[in-house]
Amino acid sequence: MDSHPFDRAIALQQVGAELFSGDCGPQYWNMVGPFGGVSAAIALNAVLQHPALLGEPVTLTVNYAAALAQGPFSISVRPVRTNRSTQHWLVELAQVDGAGATLTALTATVMTAARRSTWNSHDIPMPTVLAPMSLVRARSPGAIAWLGQYDIRFVEGGMPRTWDEADTAAPSAAASLTQIWARDDPPRVLDHCAIAALADLFFPRIFLRRRRRVPVGTVSMTTYFHASAAQLRECGTSFVLGQARGQVYQDGFFDHTAQLWSESGAPLATSSQIVYYKE
Amino acid sequence: MDSHPFDRAIALQQVGAELFSGDCGPQYWNMVGPFGGVSAAIALNAVLQHPALLGEPVTLTVNYAAALAQGPFSISVRPVRTNRSTQHWLVELAQVDGAGATLTALTATVMTAARRSTWNSHDIPMPTVLAPMSLVRARSPGAIAWLGQYDIRFVEGGMPRTWDEADTAAPSAAASLTQIWARDDPPRVLDHCAIAALADLFFPRIFLRRRRRVPVGTVSMTTYFHASAAQLRECGTSFVLGQARGQVYQDGFFDHTAQLWSESGAPLATSSQIVYYKE
Repeated sequence: MDSHPFDRAIALQQVGAELFSGDCGPQYWNMVGPFGGVSAAIALNAVLQHPALLGEPVTLTVNYAAALAQGPFSISVRPVRTNRSTQHWLVELAQVDGAGATLTALTATVMTAARRSTWNSHDIPMPTVLAPMSLVRARSPGAIAWLGQYDIRFVEGGMPRTWDEADTAAPSAAASLTQIWARDDPPRVLDHCAIAALADLFFPRIFLRRRRRVPVGTVSMTTYFHASAAQLRECGTSFVLGQARGQVYQDGFFDHTAQLWSESGAPLATSSQIVYYKE
Repeated sequence: MDSHPFDRAIALQQVGAELFSGDCGPQYWNMVGPFGGVSAAIALNAVLQHPALLGEPVTLTVNYAAALAQGPFSISVRPVRTNRSTQHWLVELAQVDGAGATLTALTATVMTAARRSTWNSHDIPMPTVLAPMSLVRARSPGAIAWLGQYDIRFVEGGMPRTWDEADTAAPSAAASLTQIWARDDPPRVLDHCAIAALADLFFPRIFLRRRRRVPVGTVSMTTYFHASAAQLRECGTSFVLGQARGQVYQDGFFDHTAQLWSESGAPLATSSQIVYYKE
């Protein structure tokens, strides 16, 4: 009853040996279909709920094959290879359409592993930015439900103030840079499903780059999880810093790379995605 | 007879409605199993050979579940969803082990699309580097067959000269940067399969960062194709500039991001991968 809306949205019921069902409800709805980050979290959650799970998530790639409709879906999840310390998964999410046909709407591959302590380091120092509480919360347009489920504070690269189509920026790593602080609202203790969703929180880089809104839709997203479940739990309900940069916009598809850090500066995850755009 | 060794390595024979067989041979062999880039190209080639193919490759994610053994393999390829202009694919490569069991060694997801002309740009200007013919070709240790199949010229971030384990570099975007010029040897006209392989040409970032060789193996690689088949063909047998940077090294896995440009400076593909490491 008093569970978090995110937990309700990604909840699954086991209905077969390797089959689950779910219904993500309206609270994380985007314009057409649910917020892609929640769909990614659902795919990951199916693996985490499987009784044969080995270890914790390391990689998640989600391919968005079609928009989900409101209502129930089924999700099949299969460990295709289990090694001594790693496990590879295939996930397929399907819905029954109006004509009674079962159609695949999303596929995912996941690699989980029993991780060991090693030499650790990184090459992505957290940018020096203002603290989240010293920044104002972005207003969320009421028309997009899922935006109301996150407290997002722009550090750099917010939505254009004018849509003047002045796409005159020279190609550079700064031209499509966005940095945000973000957390669930209401707050929720971090876990891998939350990270899978937070990795998809960036508005389309092409909006920033072109100062023009064009129809868009993510077609594939890959996230690498660097933090363990214990490390995420220790972060509690603190903010996550996210950074994204566009790479190439060409013939209807653009990609970006992204990094997520804990409020204290530890790298939590890295991600990339490719997005369809029209015109 | 006089086909290119790469074409022979990725060649597939259709043996069922959605089933192919292949045998990549010894020329692209790594230490254990074939070069991961060739395995990626094989997975992509299975999609390209499927009679129902729509459009050209946009995304390729390969999960390396186990090392391939020498000898034949089977590869199943299935279009899970075909939309008006995009198509989503699942690929599974399997081999029969010594005990007669068929085991999955690799999975891949691919998205193909009929691409349209749009507003095009990018945010990854090609770094200013010396021309390939003004650099010396890297020597390839004879022990690793596949390295002999590429002409690789290091611009920046070559293999450490001393393995002194002086991993004292401060985390930074430059600490694990490598830039290379590369092309097939013998030369071969560029195509998407070549790009899938070239995207995996970087030696492990952790070698550079730690100046120490530890056991490693790629577990997942994602490549986004930005150039069309026609654009690649126009590049002919010219060199490709590749750039890779490590991101996070933690508890047995590290990731990197990479970009590939044509010799004339056009962005061809972007890629990321996550690699297992021991110790």
